[in-house]
Amino acid sequence: MTPPAVPEAVDRAMLLAIETSGAAQGASTPNPPVGAVILDADGALAGVGHTQPVGGPHAEVMALRQAGQSARGGTAVVTLEPCNHTGRTGPCAQALLDAGIAAVYYAVPDPNPQAAGGAAALSSAGVTTVGGVREAEVRRGPLGPWLFRQREGRPMVTAKIAATLDGRVAAPDRTSQWITGPQAREHAHAQRARLDAIVIGTGTALADDPALTARRPDGSLYEHQPTRVVLGTRGLPPQARLRDGTAPLVQVRSHDPHQVLEALPDAQWVLVEGGPGIIGAFLAAGLVDQVQAYLAPTILGDGHPAVLDRSVTTLAQAHRLHRESVTELGDDLLITLTAAR
Amino acid sequence: MTPPAVPEAVDRAMLLAIETSGAAQGASTPNPPVGAVILDADGALAGVGHTQPVGGPHAEVMALRQAGQSARGGTAVVTLEPCNHTGRTGPCAQALLDAGIAAVYYAVPDPNPQAAGGAAALSSAGVTTVGGVREAEVRRGPLGPWLFRQREGRPMVTAKIAATLDGRVAAPDRTSQWITGPQAREHAHAQRARLDAIVIGTGTALADDPALTARRPDGSLYEHQPTRVVLGTRGLPPQARLRDGTAPLVQVRSHDPHQVLEALPDAQWVLVEGGPGIIGAFLAAGLVDQVQAYLAPTILGDGHPAVLDRSVTTLAQAHRLHRESVTELGDDLLITLTAAR
Ligand SMILES: NC(=O)c1ccc[n+]([C@@H]2O[C@H](COP(=O)([O-])OP(=O)(O)OC[C@H]3O[C@@H](n4cnc5c(N)ncnc54)[C@H](OP(=O)(O)O)[C@@H]3O)[C@@H](O)[C@H]2O)c1
Ligand SMILES: NC(=O)c1ccc[n+]([C@@H]2O[C@H](COP(=O)([O-])OP(=O)(O)OC[C@H]3O[C@@H](n4cnc5c(N)ncnc54)[C@H](OP(=O)(O)O)[C@@H]3O)[C@@H](O)[C@H]2O)c1
Repeated sequence: MTPPAVPEAVDRAMLLAIETSGAAQGASTPNPPVGAVILDADGALAGVGHTQPVGGPHAEVMALRQAGQSARGGTAVVTLEPCNHTGRTGPCAQALLDAGIAAVYYAVPDPNPQAAGGAAALSSAGVTTVGGVREAEVRRGPLGPWLFRQREGRPMVTAKIAATLDGRVAAPDRTSQWITGPQAREHAHAQRARLDAIVIGTGTALADDPALTARRPDGSLYEHQPTRVVLGTRGLPPQARLRDGTAPLVQVRSHDPHQVLEALPDAQWVLVEGGPGIIGAFLAAGLVDQVQAYLAPTILGDGHPAVLDRSVTTLAQAHRLHRESVTELGDDLLITLTAAR
Repeated sequence: MTPPAVPEAVDRAMLLAIETSGAAQGASTPNPPVGAVILDADGALAGVGHTQPVGGPHAEVMALRQAGQSARGGTAVVTLEPCNHTGRTGPCAQALLDAGIAAVYYAVPDPNPQAAGGAAALSSAGVTTVGGVREAEVRRGPLGPWLFRQREGRPMVTAKIAATLDGRVAAPDRTSQWITGPQAREHAHAQRARLDAIVIGTGTALADDPALTARRPDGSLYEHQPTRVVLGTRGLPPQARLRDGTAPLVQVRSHDPHQVLEALPDAQWVLVEGGPGIIGAFLAAGLVDQVQAYLAPTILGDGHPAVLDRSVTTLAQAHRLHRESVTELGDDLLITLTAAR
C-alpha cells in the first residue's frame, strides 16, 4: 500500500510522535509505547505526549492535557490507532472526541481486537480519520517490539555482540574491558533504558560480575531499568552486583532459551548480551530476531569467540541475516541485522 | 601543505591519470604504476597513458605518443614527478621538453634520488612546473604501494579476511565456499590483478587446492597474475592447481613471514589471504599494513577463526587499526583498515 498523502505539518508531527514514543519504550510495558502530537486548528504544535507506566494516561490523553483548549478543532497525530476500549484509563477515541479534535492521523492499526475500533468510532462521529501515515517507520521504531509481541506471542529478541574485527569478545585470560569505545558503550546503555530485559549466562555473571544497569556517561541511572535475567544452573554469590536491587533479577535455572521468554510474559524487547554459548543457544533455538554487532577496529587473534554453538558442523548451517544498517560510533561500527525468515 | 590551486581541466586530468594508473598496477613492477594525461594548448584531452611492463615506455611517453603534434604548447598531468635519469627508456623530462610541453603538473615528488630532478630540469628549461596536485589521493591510490616500498624497503602487506559476522572463515568440516557473495568475490579478483603476490599457508593450499588466479566473473584470466606464495614446510602434491603454470609459484619452507617478503625483492603489494595462522603470524611480526575484512551477513557459531595467534593472552595485546572505509558489496560489507603506527 502506498502511504496516504498528508499535510506537511502532519508528516512532521508524526516524526515527532515517533521520537517522543521512545521515552515510553520499556517503561510502558505491557502497554504499547505510543507517541501523540496535537496540532491546533491552525496546524501549530499544541501538545506532545507518550504512554505513561501502567495505570497512567495513554499518549493521546497526555498530549491533550498539554494542548488544553487549543485542541478544539485541531488535529491529533498518533503512532497507533487510538484505543476504543475502557481499560484502566477509558478509551482514547472518546477523549479525542470530548476535546473537540477535528482530524486524527495515525500510523498503525491496533492489532489487538479488544482495543481496535477507535478509528471507526472516530470517523462515524464525523472526525476525519486517516491511517497508514509513516507506518513503515513506526513499525521499525519504538512500537516495533510491541507489535512483534502481539503478532508472535513472544518478545522480540536482539542478540548483541561487542567484538573485535575477528569476532573475539574476550581474550584468553577473559579480559574484555574495553573492546569497544565510549560512544558504543553510551549507545548500548541508552538502549538498555528501553529494554524489558537483558539476558546473560551464568558464565558471564560469575566471571565479570556485571551490573547490567542502564547508566548515563556520568554514571547516573536512567529512570527505567530492564529486568536482569541469568540463564544457567550455577548459583550467584550473595554479593553479586546483580542482586543489588537496582532492577529485578530473574534466574532461569536451565539451558533452555524458551524458558527465558516464558519467564517474561509481558516483555516486548529482550536483549541477549552473551556470553558466546548463550547467544549460540538462542540462535540454535530460532529465537534471535535481530543482531547488533558492535565491531571494534582491532584484531585479537585468540580468546573467546562472539558466538559458540557446538552443534554446528558445516557452512550450510550458518544463520542468514539481512543487513539493516551500518552506523559509525566513534572508532567502532554498529552493524544491525534482522533474521532472514 | 595546502594543495596548489590548479585549473579545473588539470584537476580533472589528474583524476583521470590516477584512474589510468590502476591499469599499470602489478604489471609495471618493479617500476611505479604511473598515469599521465596530455592536454593540448586549448586544454582539451589529447593523450592518456600508463607505465608499461619493464623495458616498455613510461606513462608520459605513452600519453605523448597518443597526443602527437597536439602536445606542442600543451600541458602534461602526471601522478609522479617525471623522471630525469636515463634508464632503459631515456628520461621523461627530456621527452616532455622535446614534445614542446609548456606546463607540467604532477602529484608526488620522486622519492628515488636517481630518478629525481625531473621537475628542476623542466622548470629551468622554462616549463611551468607545479607539484602536489591531488597528492593525498595519489598516495592512497595505485602508486601507494610503490611509494611504501621506496620508504620502507619492503612491500606493503594487506591481510584479507572473508568471514562471517562472528569471525569464522570455515566451518568445523572446513567448508568455506561461499561465505561471501559474488560481488565480494568479483572485487577480490579485480584486486588480485593489481597485486604482485598472494600468500597462503600450506594448510589452506592442501585443504582447498586453490588456484589463486585473478579471474573475471566469466572465468577468463586477467592479463596480469600475481605470484603465488605458499608458506610452510609441507610439500605440495604434483597435481596441485598452484603448479599449473598460470603464474609463478614460490614456496617458502619456513614459518617466518619475513622470509616471504625477502623472497619477493621487487614486490610492491602483497596480499596475505590466510589461513588464520598465517595472518596471525604476519600480524605478530608487525608486517600487516592494511586489513580488508569482507564480512558476510551470517553467523556460524563454530569453525575456524579468521585469525589465530596462540601467543596472545590478554586484551592489551590486540592489534589496533584505523578504519579507512566501509563499502557495501551486495549483501557483504568490505571494511578496510590501516595499521595504527
Ligand atoms: N564483549 C562482550 O560483548 C561480552 C559479552 C558477554 C560475555 N563476554 C565474555 O565472554 C566470556 C565467555 O563466558 P562464558 O562462555 O563462560 O559465558 P556465558 O555464555 O555467559 O555462560 C555460559 C554458561 O551459561 C550456562 N548456560 C545456560 N544455557 C546454556 C546453553 N544453552 N548453552 C551453553 N551454556 C548455557 C552454562 O552454565 P551452568 O553450568 O551454570 O548451567 C554455561 O556454562 C566471558 O569472559 C565474558 O567476559 C563478552
Ligand atoms: N574465508 C577465507 O578467506 C579463507 C582464507 C584462507 C583459508 N581459509 C580456511 O581456513 C582454514 C584453516 O586452514 P589452516 O589453519 O590449516 O591453514 P593455513 O593457515 O593456511 O596453514 C597453516 C599451516 O601453515 C604453515 N605455517 C607457516 N608459517 C606458519 C606460522 N608462522 N604459524 C603457523 N603456521 C604456519 C604450517 O604448515 P607446515 O606444517 O606445512 O609448516 C601450518 O600448519 C581452511 O579450511 C581454509 O579453507 C579461509
